[in-house]
Order: sequence, then structure tokens, then C-alpha cells
Amino acid sequence: MSVQLDSYLQGSWKRGDSAPRSLINPATEREVATIKSMSSSLADALHHGRETGGASLRRLSFAERGELLDKMAKVLHEAREELIDLAIQNGGNTRKDAKFDIDGGISVLAHYAYLAKSLGERPWIVEDEPSAVYRGAKIRAEHILVPRHGLAIHINAFNFPAWGMLGKAAVALLAGMPVLCKPATSTAWLAHRIFEILLDAECVPDGAFQLLMGSAGDLLDHVGPQDVIAFTGSQGVGTTIKTHPAVIAAGTRVNLEADSLNAAVIGPDVESGTELFDLVIRDLVVEITQKAGQKCTATRRVLVPEAALESVREVLLDRLGELAGQTGDPSDKSVRMGPLTSKAQLDDARAGITKLLASAEIIHGDPARTTGFVGVEDGTGYFLEPIVLEAKPDAVLDPEASFHRHEVFAPVTTLLPYDGELASAAKIIGLGKGSLVSTVYTDDREWLAGAVAEIGPWLGRLVVANEKFANASMSPGCVFPVANHGGPGRAGGGEELGGVHGMGLYMQRVAIQGGASQIARLL
Amino acid sequence: MSVQLDSYLQGSWKRGDSAPRSLINPATEREVATIKSMSSSLADALHHGRETGGASLRRLSFAERGELLDKMAKVLHEAREELIDLAIQNGGNTRKDAKFDIDGGISVLAHYAYLAKSLGERPWIVEDEPSAVYRGAKIRAEHILVPRHGLAIHINAFNFPAWGMLGKAAVALLAGMPVLCKPATSTAWLAHRIFEILLDAECVPDGAFQLLMGSAGDLLDHVGPQDVIAFTGSQGVGTTIKTHPAVIAAGTRVNLEADSLNAAVIGPDVESGTELFDLVIRDLVVEITQKAGQKCTATRRVLVPEAALESVREVLLDRLGELAGQTGDPSDKSVRMGPLTSKAQLDDARAGITKLLASAEIIHGDPARTTGFVGVEDGTGYFLEPIVLEAKPDAVLDPEASFHRHEVFAPVTTLLPYDGELASAAKIIGLGKGSLVSTVYTDDREWLAGAVAEIGPWLGRLVVANEKFANASMSPGCVFPVANHGGPGRAGGGEELGGVHGMGLYMQRVAIQGGASQIARLL
Repeated sequence: MSVQLDSYLQGSWKRGDSAPRSLINPATEREVATIKSMSSSLADALHHGRETGGASLRRLSFAERGELLDKMAKVLHEAREELIDLAIQNGGNTRKDAKFDIDGGISVLAHYAYLAKSLGERPWIVEDEPSAVYRGAKIRAEHILVPRHGLAIHINAFNFPAWGMLGKAAVALLAGMPVLCKPATSTAWLAHRIFEILLDAECVPDGAFQLLMGSAGDLLDHVGPQDVIAFTGSQGVGTTIKTHPAVIAAGTRVNLEADSLNAAVIGPDVESGTELFDLVIRDLVVEITQKAGQKCTATRRVLVPEAALESVREVLLDRLGELAGQTGDPSDKSVRMGPLTSKAQLDDARAGITKLLASAEIIHGDPARTTGFVGVEDGTGYFLEPIVLEAKPDAVLDPEASFHRHEVFAPVTTLLPYDGELASAAKIIGLGKGSLVSTVYTDDREWLAGAVAEIGPWLGRLVVANEKFANASMSPGCVFPVANHGGPGRAGGGEELGGVHGMGLYMQRVAIQGGASQIARLL
Repeated sequence: MSVQLDSYLQGSWKRGDSAPRSLINPATEREVATIKSMSSSLADALHHGRETGGASLRRLSFAERGELLDKMAKVLHEAREELIDLAIQNGGNTRKDAKFDIDGGISVLAHYAYLAKSLGERPWIVEDEPSAVYRGAKIRAEHILVPRHGLAIHINAFNFPAWGMLGKAAVALLAGMPVLCKPATSTAWLAHRIFEILLDAECVPDGAFQLLMGSAGDLLDHVGPQDVIAFTGSQGVGTTIKTHPAVIAAGTRVNLEADSLNAAVIGPDVESGTELFDLVIRDLVVEITQKAGQKCTATRRVLVPEAALESVREVLLDRLGELAGQTGDPSDKSVRMGPLTSKAQLDDARAGITKLLASAEIIHGDPARTTGFVGVEDGTGYFLEPIVLEAKPDAVLDPEASFHRHEVFAPVTTLLPYDGELASAAKIIGLGKGSLVSTVYTDDREWLAGAVAEIGPWLGRLVVANEKFANASMSPGCVFPVANHGGPGRAGGGEELGGVHGMGLYMQRVAIQGGASQIARLL
């Protein structure tokens, strides 16, 4: 039984007219749905979003837009079990993975619904206090953020069909921008069902939320100067978007979340037997196995002080060994790690591991294994067991080392022995050329303060973990709506979420300059 | 007497080896200086800036970097008369124009020197209060800005050799980033002399400030993920920078200030005989004639309510008529408007006026006039008298109208009659596809609040002017360090200055996530 997934544009469902593409259950390789791309121009859909959706949204106050998000969160929460089931079938998600995605999306809606209450009654956000334009002047300048009058075009990645869609939409809608969402095709069933539920519940005004299934068609040809494109995916596609002639000509704002060689930095003071050491191992296992490692925030490089290498290696491999019989079809409840999402991902991951082998060797797992996965016949499904590599000692500080250059989007990580010096750690982090997140585990406050200054510039988020908070600490791959999500350089240079900061993407900062009492009354 | 202007790279003066380019006095057409571009690779200069300059700057606190800016401001203030003289000779500036540029640059240094005192002792800026990652969690996230570990590459425009250079450098240096400045060649003499003065006074550490004269050579080939490029100039060059393969590959942060069809919006309530009406005319005359209209913030489109068209036209042309005999060689003190900066600019301006004539007609001035300019022989110098056009009535709302598409970078503006409705004004502003600044003149508070919401998204700065503050109001082309400078879409999508906001360009926003008391102690 396979469903056909249509686009929802200009206020109605639109069936595509191209050859159908199959969406596959990656554990069973059976088709679960099909999508036909639209071959007609999307110019009218963009126009509809901007004119009809944008105008309707901007007529609402922030608080009213927050109520809209709150309703979205509620109707999706009610449909949670159905959505989890879809994610298991279409995404290869375990139940826990599916909840991570779906609950994550709902939590962003809920957070921005809550934030809305603090944003005041004006149609803009006041950012700062007025400043005299020069000392003693009666004329002041003050910055506000006003909603942009374009369309927010969201092009999402396959790994988080729910969180990616809802996390981006929540922020744009609250900011007052209408959304056109293009999910990644391989896992679009979940995104499509979420959209249907929101539509049936009449959560948002006409034009404020549109859904494009399949290929992007001529979407980018029609972007304008007030539009915003937020893209999550590969650097290659990101480059195509950033350099698209229409994007360049219009000066369309583009936010990218691309590849990221996130790191875990184990401080020189971390000793086995401590809760902090246990946290390191726990975080690593989560980051390797959750969503089968298909997270842009997953830890790809583990900086291990040479003195701690043996104990980290031993305990980590022990822990992964315990999981050995628990990879398989996630519809089986004993399974703790599912397959990769598609054959293309599996092929990419295996090719990526081969690249890593130029600078590292495998110390756990067999990339070629196709047998013994739970609940499936040998050879069926896109499975890859957890793979741990260890860097060749002279490769760690080599800028050309493959683990500093290639992200393998799969349950794969590499241990990088280092001398425990902050300068070395900072250098190694920098060789990754920009990441979304990294974690520093230490109880040494001075070392930590140095890490913030030296490692921080390479990151969008830095998780700090110490003995005292080891039990409460959240693994770095978990993205919260209050914290910035994005990173410099290779990670795309974008910024999303982070509470009110994330709304800036969809708003224009304007300095309002005028007489002191005039500004005070106006804003 | 012509001087040769060398680059200062890697701690010493470097003479170029390409064919010399002449810098010309645009009033007399005499050569005042020459520049030879470097043909050798700039990779080492970039590396020197990042490694030597960056490390030295980051060892200083914000307060110490502020002291450095303060010293820069002081030594330049002492050399002010010499610098003004250079600007008159090389830039075609009147004394007033030269002060606008030079004092403007010094005032940015002074402002950021002052701001430094409030930035604390840590090597980062804390942006917000900590937030629990979910309700009730012990783990918090809080955002900081840390200096990026790259080089700030400043590529400046010809019209503000002092302000452009110093305004960008002040912010980068305070943020903790070393600067490599490439002035526009035609007016680089002033920038070069400023650099010499700062170098002689030993204002900044080795590597923290480098100067590249002439062409950019292979500068962009060597950019990295922590570098920042801030460019002011044409959209064409901006596109080349944004889409340069090395910029794309590294994810280098780019800030553009490009073309801008800024507007003055005269509200429907403004009546002749009021101080507000007088302010409108005063601002227009300043924006047309200051720097001979060669300002990215100059007013290019004047929205005039149909009912006020006759009076605005009459008074404005009267006032410009009074200036008729005062355009000429700015070394003559009676001159109130100088020439354009180069022959290329004059040719461009004349070609641009021809484009404007497709949708408007000239109501003041003769673009072809080459005679009667003060202090020069007829036919000498790159002079253009003030030109005012008036839109053909049916062109005002036409998206294809030339005045919505072409910026003429010269003393040229176009009157656009409109019906006085806010919706029309907003539509007309939007047809310019994004501007640095516009002004709204009105005493109607509701109309003004509507303008902020409807016109604001198209601007980086909105000047509001009413009767009460008419005397104190500052013309929109004057950029203050406390207010954002940049604009969406056609204007490049950049943000500079704006107090602490502008430092964000040179810093990385990082969410620090950790235990509540741990974060509190750390930050």
C-alpha cells in the first residue's frame, strides 16, 4: 500500500506531472509512498505566499501568531503516535529517534508560542535603548526588527522531516513571514502528513504555509529581495543556492546549515571512574547511534588526551559491543539503531569511510557487513553498524587529514589522540573549518575559559560539561530552541533558533532615527 | 609633484611592480600621485595578519583596544588640516565635504573607543541572559560573541577614503580582528596618508593593520573560514566577491554595501511655509550637492504628494539656482560643490541620466554643460551641475521605470509625484528593491507608524522628521556610528556600525550550554 503525496500551493492540493519517485522503507526496501514533481512554474505560489499569506500574518500581533503556533503544537501532539509510526516506516527511525524528531519539532513550536507573549503589541521588536547620534544631540537612533515582506523558503534535509520543517516554520511564522516548505523527498511522507494535519485543523491563514513535494523546479528563479531562503543539507546544494543568479541579483537572504565536523574535546583532567568520564562515553554512544548517526550535530571527531586513549577506547568499544545485536528493523521494539535512510546514504557512507581510512584505521565495526541485522533477511535494508576509527598519530594535526575534511553522515566517528594542550585542541577544532557544535569535558575552569575564547570562534554552540553537572548534561546533538543552531565556515555560516536571535533571519534590522520624544512615542 | 603610494604588508612598505596608475585632481585633471599594484601573491600578508596581528589584538582587552582607537582618533585629529587638503586635491571635495569624510572617520574611532569601556574584562561579549534549555532544566544556554580568528578584509569605495577606511577598521579592531584595507585607487592618497600617520604613531600592533594599494591581486584566492570581507562599492564587484570560488569554498563571511535608491517621502500633511517643509528642501539640497552627490546614502527618489508638487519643485529649483555659480574647483573657497571624482564617474553619471530620461524629464540642470565652472578653464575637470528630474506620471508605479532601477552616483535626483497614500509610498519604496536609508517627513503619527511597518523592511535606516524636531534633524545621508548602516536586497544585505551590533560582523555568536552555576561563573 503506497500513497501519493501531493503539493499544497496557492490554497489547494496540486498533483505533480513528472515521473513518480518512490519513498522507501529503508529497513525492508519496500515502497511506502510516491511523489510526482511539479513541472509548472512556481512563480504564482511564491506570489501567493508573499501577498496573501504575508499580509494575513502581518495583520496578527506577535501574541496572536504565538497562539497559532500553540495550536499547531497541540494538534500535532494529539497525532503523535501516528506520526511516530510514519517515521519508523519511512525514515528508518527507532521509536526513540522518531520522538526525537517529532517532539523536537513540537517543542520548537511551543517555545516560540511562549516567547511570543513577551514580544509586545507593536508590529516590530525593539532591540535596544535609543542612543544620541552624537553626544548631546536631541536626535536619537534605536534599532528595531520588522518582518520582511517576502516569503520564507525552507529547503529541508532528509534526516529531520518533522523538526526541520517545524523548527524553521515556527520562527518564520512568529516573525510574520509566510513559509513555503520543500521537504527532502526520501523522507517526505512524515512532513506531508504533518502538513495535512495542520491544514485540516486550519492552523494558519491561507498562503501562510505552503508545501512543495519533489524537486524544487523553478523555485529559485523567482526569488525577490525580501525573501529568505533557509537551507539545510549538503555544501554542494548550498553553493548552488547561494550562487544562483536570481538569488544574487535580488540580494535574497540565504541561511545555510551544511556539513559539520563536530568534535568532542576530552580535557586533560578527565579520569576514568568519574561521572564526567561516564558522560563522555554516554554522549559518544548517543551521538554515534541516535538516528544512525544521521544528524548534522553528531560528533565526528573525538579529541582524546593520549593518556586517556586506552581507557576511552576500551570503555567505548565495550559499550558499542553491547549494542551489536540491536541494529535492525526499527519496527522491532528490541532494536536500538535503525538503517540509514536510503541506499544513496549507505553508498555515500561506505565511500566516506574509505576516505577516512587514508588517515585513520577502523577499531570497531565492519562497514561491509550486510548480515545479522534484527528482523530482516540478510542483505535487505540499508544498514551500517557503528564504526569507530582511530587517527594515525601523525595525521591528527595534518590539515589534509581526511577526518578534518570529510563528514561521513552515518554512525561513524574517529578518535583523535592529542597532547591535552588547549592550543592543540583549538588547532584541531579549527582544521574542521567550522562546526555547528562541539563539547568540552573538563573540570579545569581556566582550561575551559581558554577553550571558549580559542575554540568558540569555530562553533555555533559550545557545550560545556563538568563533574558537577554530568548527570544533568544533555548530549551535544540535541538542539534546543533557546540556543543558536548554525556554525561558521564549512557549517554554512548560518544562524537559526537561539530564541529571539533566530527571528532576525526573517526580519529586517532598521535603525529608526529621529527626535528623542518622537522616537520614544513611536516605538 | 606626484608621489608614489606603496602598500604596507607584513610589517614593511612594499613597492608594486605593475605599470603605474595615476591619481588625478578631478578639478584640474593633473596627476597628484601614482600607484603600482603588487603582482606577487598576497597569501603571506593574509597569514601575517591572521597570525601576528590577530594574536596581538586578542591579547588586549576590549578596553585596551578602545585605547588604541582613541589614540588613532587623536593623532588623526592633529593631522586634520593636512588631510583636508589632500581630500580637496585628490577627491574633488570641498572643504566641507572633506571634513564630512575625515571627521566622520575620526568620530567612528572615538565612538568605538568610548563603547569599549562598557564591554567588560572577558575576551567575549555576553549577549543575553541564560535560558533553561527546557522548562525546569538545570542546563542553561547563553549567547556570547567571540572575536573571529581570521582577517578582516576591507575593500572600500572611492567616495569616502577616510570614513570608509576608519569606520570599518574601528569596528574590526575593537572586535579583535586584524585588518587588511584596500582603498579604491582613484582617491587612495588620503587613505594612504592616514595609514602613514597611524603607523608613525605606532597606534596598532604589528600585523593588525595592513594596507594594499592598487588592484586586489590574488587576495580573494586565499580567504579562509574565519575571515570577513567587508566591501563597499558596485553590485557587480559585490557579486564577484560573493561568488568567488574560494569565498564559497571556505564559507567566508561577506558584508556588502552596494547600490541604493534611497528615498525621501514627503507625507501628505507637509505644507509649504512650515519648518518641516523647509527641512525637506534643506535635506534635498544637502543630499544632491554634498560630495557632488557621490554618497551611497544620497537621496535618489523624492516622493512628493501631488498636491505639494508645485511648491516643492519651485522652492527646490530656486534654492539650487542660487548655487549655480558655486560649482567648481574646491580649492577656491567660494565653491560649494566640486567635480565628480574621476572621468569614469562623470561618464557613468551622464550615461545614467540618459537611462533616467526613459521614465523622467530634466527640470533643472544640463548634464552636458562643461563651461562656467569656478576656477577652471572651460572643458577642464569632471564637473556635473546638479540635475533634478521629474518622473513621467505613469512611470511612478512602474517596476521597470529607470529611476527604480538605476542609481546615478552624482548630484542627481528625481521627483516622483504620488497620491499621498501610505500604501503607494510603500509600494514605490519597494520598487527600489532595498535601500540603505530613507526619510519620512510627517506630523501624522499614525501615518508614520504605518510607514515604519510597511517601508521599514526595505531599509537599513529610517529617518523620521517632524515639525517639532525640524531644526535639530540631521540629513539622511549623514551616517552615525550608533545607527545601522546597510540595507536589504539591492543595497547588499549588509550591516555595519550600529554600535555593538556592528561588531557582530567580526565576531562569532556562540551559544554556551552548560550547568546553571557553571555558566554563570564562566561568562
